[in-house]
Amino acid sequence: MATTKFLLPEDQMPKHWYNIAADLPTPAAPVLHPGTMQPVGPDDLAPLFPMELIGQEVSTEREIAIPEPVREVFRLWRPSPLVRAHRLEKLLGTPAKIYYKYEGVSPAGSHKPNTAVPQAWYNAQAGVKKLSTETGAGQWGSSLAFAGALFGLQVKVFQVRVSYDQKPYRRALMETYGASCVASPSNETNAGRAILAQRADHPGSLGIAISEAVEVAATNDDTKYALGSVLNHVLLHQTIIGQEAMLQLEMAGDDPDVIVGCTGGGSNFAGIAFPFIGQQLRGKGKTKQRRIVAVEPAACPSLTRGRFAYDFGDTAHLTPLTKMHTLGSTFTPPGFHAGGLRYHGMAPMVSHLTDLGLIEPTAYHQNTCFEAGVLFARAEGIVPAPEANHAVKGAIVEALRCKAEGKSDVILFNLCGHGHFDMSAYTAYFSGKLVDQNYDEAELAMALSGLPSVPA
Amino acid sequence: MATTKFLLPEDQMPKHWYNIAADLPTPAAPVLHPGTMQPVGPDDLAPLFPMELIGQEVSTEREIAIPEPVREVFRLWRPSPLVRAHRLEKLLGTPAKIYYKYEGVSPAGSHKPNTAVPQAWYNAQAGVKKLSTETGAGQWGSSLAFAGALFGLQVKVFQVRVSYDQKPYRRALMETYGASCVASPSNETNAGRAILAQRADHPGSLGIAISEAVEVAATNDDTKYALGSVLNHVLLHQTIIGQEAMLQLEMAGDDPDVIVGCTGGGSNFAGIAFPFIGQQLRGKGKTKQRRIVAVEPAACPSLTRGRFAYDFGDTAHLTPLTKMHTLGSTFTPPGFHAGGLRYHGMAPMVSHLTDLGLIEPTAYHQNTCFEAGVLFARAEGIVPAPEANHAVKGAIVEALRCKAEGKSDVILFNLCGHGHFDMSAYTAYFSGKLVDQNYDEAELAMALSGLPSVPA
Repeated sequence: MATTKFLLPEDQMPKHWYNIAADLPTPAAPVLHPGTMQPVGPDDLAPLFPMELIGQEVSTEREIAIPEPVREVFRLWRPSPLVRAHRLEKLLGTPAKIYYKYEGVSPAGSHKPNTAVPQAWYNAQAGVKKLSTETGAGQWGSSLAFAGALFGLQVKVFQVRVSYDQKPYRRALMETYGASCVASPSNETNAGRAILAQRADHPGSLGIAISEAVEVAATNDDTKYALGSVLNHVLLHQTIIGQEAMLQLEMAGDDPDVIVGCTGGGSNFAGIAFPFIGQQLRGKGKTKQRRIVAVEPAACPSLTRGRFAYDFGDTAHLTPLTKMHTLGSTFTPPGFHAGGLRYHGMAPMVSHLTDLGLIEPTAYHQNTCFEAGVLFARAEGIVPAPEANHAVKGAIVEALRCKAEGKSDVILFNLCGHGHFDMSAYTAYFSGKLVDQNYDEAELAMALSGLPSVPA
Repeated sequence: MATTKFLLPEDQMPKHWYNIAADLPTPAAPVLHPGTMQPVGPDDLAPLFPMELIGQEVSTEREIAIPEPVREVFRLWRPSPLVRAHRLEKLLGTPAKIYYKYEGVSPAGSHKPNTAVPQAWYNAQAGVKKLSTETGAGQWGSSLAFAGALFGLQVKVFQVRVSYDQKPYRRALMETYGASCVASPSNETNAGRAILAQRADHPGSLGIAISEAVEVAATNDDTKYALGSVLNHVLLHQTIIGQEAMLQLEMAGDDPDVIVGCTGGGSNFAGIAFPFIGQQLRGKGKTKQRRIVAVEPAACPSLTRGRFAYDFGDTAHLTPLTKMHTLGSTFTPPGFHAGGLRYHGMAPMVSHLTDLGLIEPTAYHQNTCFEAGVLFARAEGIVPAPEANHAVKGAIVEALRCKAEGKSDVILFNLCGHGHFDMSAYTAYFSGKLVDQNYDEAELAMALSGLPSVPA
């Protein structure tokens, strides 16, 4: 029997993050100040982030060193395994080779600690005492809570109310790590109070929770803000996934033809894909041309149905404007189970690369993704998070294409987290209660018509 | 920074299980037929188990080969990591070196798949189509469900009703793996119906659920029974934990002075401890004498407060009689959160070794164990299962003893599972609602007075 798991020794864990800004054929559009419509400078962002992270946000250096104290924490679970899905291949009867990079081995069960740990560390180094953030289902909130515990930072999480009420277990995880967690919209911020005045039982949204967390950071000197996806420095921190996978595939003697990831804000996808895209960009056509597939939920399809335009990251319009694929900041996606993919926008860098034709976006509804996840669980043992089921679905589609074409492509996908906190979604799937929700076309049109106008 | 994780390459994963029966100074007491009071033979057990497992149950061979198809499945998560708890050591300010073997990396999140996979495989090889079993919180049921899915066996799980109602997420996990799960006591068996006739809303117990699962196997030709702990062959399968840990500690250049595990039925404890105890037994005083600490819940203290006597394994008295530390088969432990440690008896082999003075049993209440677990989570990132918190507590007690004595002992403990399915227990702990329950002394006395009398 051939090897199943490819494990890197700790001393081969990457010492640098890979910054794709160094290799872009054309730079991404600048971030704009919502008041002046001029590109933001470091000072504009200083109330929210420490200077080291602001520097990473705008850096064009190809390699950025991972601080040793951050690597020390990473050693608790990294390098993460690359697994050859022998049993899934057999079940599908495909000649393709399927590999998955498994990020569910982290303490919080997903890829999110890859950026939570450095964000907490840079903040602690800058003398920050408190971090505020938002979370949907809780993957990001629990990851930042974990990272805060390691570096002595108080973490305050605004959790979207519908998740706060429905998923108490991730909240318990945040509290186990010592963080405090409040339902959003809350009475603790102007943004929250304004929403509650309109509707006392508002279920909340990520856009609202971001507004609350940003407000707390902007109005408290000892508090900074941390975001779990979308921004350049967050995507940068996730590239350790793809860098490790590249080394592990070398150990396996394989080179991927197709790379698949799921996209919500874009960070786990960027993590696995950017190092490979960068290799291609540097090779200028002389290296292997790989297909890079981004799988998003059909109910919140920013890449496949959104507009590539400037928009706000939050509902209360406290954030700068970024050019990205967006469904409009007032768009409220249906309540499907992949909470981590329920965001109106897309990481500007992922949007830019999609616009350049380097990424193939595709969208699936949730039932077919759960079907793929259950097939995977019964073959490989791991129950994927609902978000990760989208990547599983994408990989299975590619494997079945290979079967039909008689091709033995090498498929790599990112299994970004396990579903142990999401079993109620599986229960709903098995009971037939899971509905493939469509977004409201009229609402999308209205949200898009409300995009801010930016001078050319 | 020194190495944190010690990872064995796949090709160094043990090829044999270690059978401590080969090295005992005196053999364990025989298992008796409850009708004849004579030692049971293979034919007595044949309705319940395939012959290969019955052979392992009574074997005195030191090494028993792990079948290659079983090792192939193990490669999905094994070898499991051995981790040096640098951050916990620092937090405690102890000169001790603390290592933990982490079994939560398995698909079901605990050590249970180590025996579920071979049990399912041997049954499938023997042409068995269905397996019946019981489960409390669901660690074992979800593990057998996983193993059944891999080898095409239908798995039927009788889950203790109180857990069935309170913890739907592990049930969802069993269903994801394709198993069916019913609340016990159920209307599907004579044992269940008899209990329900007395009390329609009976909360159930492991002893009752075992009776139901055994009855289904005994009365259906195509169905065998599978048990997740207690029996010799189950403990045998878990020894891969200790064998791997031994190799990994050699990589780390250390030799343990103290080995700590939590005990319910005894299998994860035996898994980490038996290979080390066996080394000592074979060394006959010439090798290092290690302390082997078994940590049990003070609310269900079979080793520290039970009687070492023949007893039944189940409530309806369908099982053979085994000599073990027991609180009496009618004893109902309080409903504390470590469901996997809530059993009236102890593995006969663990009991025998305790009787021989080779194991130090100790008992703690749940609040101090949760306190230890939270300390561990904030230092090492992993949230332990409530059962595993008992081992964490035991290890911390030893580390603080070393601090007081100025000793740099090497402490090894088994972190047998993660707590992601048990967050409601953590919520109860943080809200101050977790009570240190005591068992009823009068009930214990009555249960012990009901022990079966066995001719000397």
